[in-house]
Amino acid sequence: MTGTESDDCVFCRVIATDDPDTVWIEREPAAVAFRPLPGSELAPGHTLVVPREHAAGLLDVSPDALRATTLLAQQVGRAMRAALGATGVVVLSATGADAGQSVAHLHLHVVPCWPDDGVLRWPERRSAHVVDGDAAVMLAEMFE
Amino acid sequence: MTGTESDDCVFCRVIATDDPDTVWIEREPAAVAFRPLPGSELAPGHTLVVPREHAAGLLDVSPDALRATTLLAQQVGRAMRAALGATGVVVLSATGADAGQSVAHLHLHVVPCWPDDGVLRWPERRSAHVVDGDAAVMLAEMFE
Repeated sequence: MTGTESDDCVFCRVIATDDPDTVWIEREPAAVAFRPLPGSELAPGHTLVVPREHAAGLLDVSPDALRATTLLAQQVGRAMRAALGATGVVVLSATGADAGQSVAHLHLHVVPCWPDDGVLRWPERRSAHVVDGDAAVMLAEMFE
Repeated sequence: MTGTESDDCVFCRVIATDDPDTVWIEREPAAVAFRPLPGSELAPGHTLVVPREHAAGLLDVSPDALRATTLLAQQVGRAMRAALGATGVVVLSATGADAGQSVAHLHLHVVPCWPDDGVLRWPERRSAHVVDGDAAVMLAEMFE
């Protein structure tokens, strides 16, 4: 135990125990990469990249853990090109249950793409949520 | 011109000219955030976060530009929670035309979510691509 993990977090447990049932792609000091559970991969080679330090999601991860996680995602993307011949890479990450996050420990899905995927990658439907005001202006005001 | 942009890149031009038609959320020394073109937003407040330095995508961005871009995406996500009451945030980024990338300059889509979105966020279809071998093992071998 490093003192930074959460007892209730499945990814913290997988990392802390160096789980032998997990298919590890890479284990670095601050971030790890592994295969999702069988049946949940969006493509062959789909990889989860996760900081060792517990953070529920993007909004509360430390700068150092974010850096380590995104740099490892970059390395995984390059490996997809080199080892699997991927011609594209998608990175997806959800923070919060309303975003579809299933495990509350920041994880980047890194998904390789090929011309014969047969998958439309871009979300097809627009949010039905209505904001009272100009959302972009309201966001910009937070940075003033 | 800083010497790091590409003459042919629409995002480099928007950034270099401080484009007055763009709705800017934030402009930092190494990364900027702005509203996508009208009609292309997935949700109110949908924001693009982009490094000033030209990089085609995740695979070739410099560590410093990646750091600045992801830290700004984090700030934008926090602003979505604070200013728009978002209860979730999705980050999406495509690298390569086969991943659905439209502008060949790294950009993170940061999309706020709410309970009443009416949108299934997770891709519904699995890639049809077949890899000759165990893709996870082939990736892991790249890190040995």
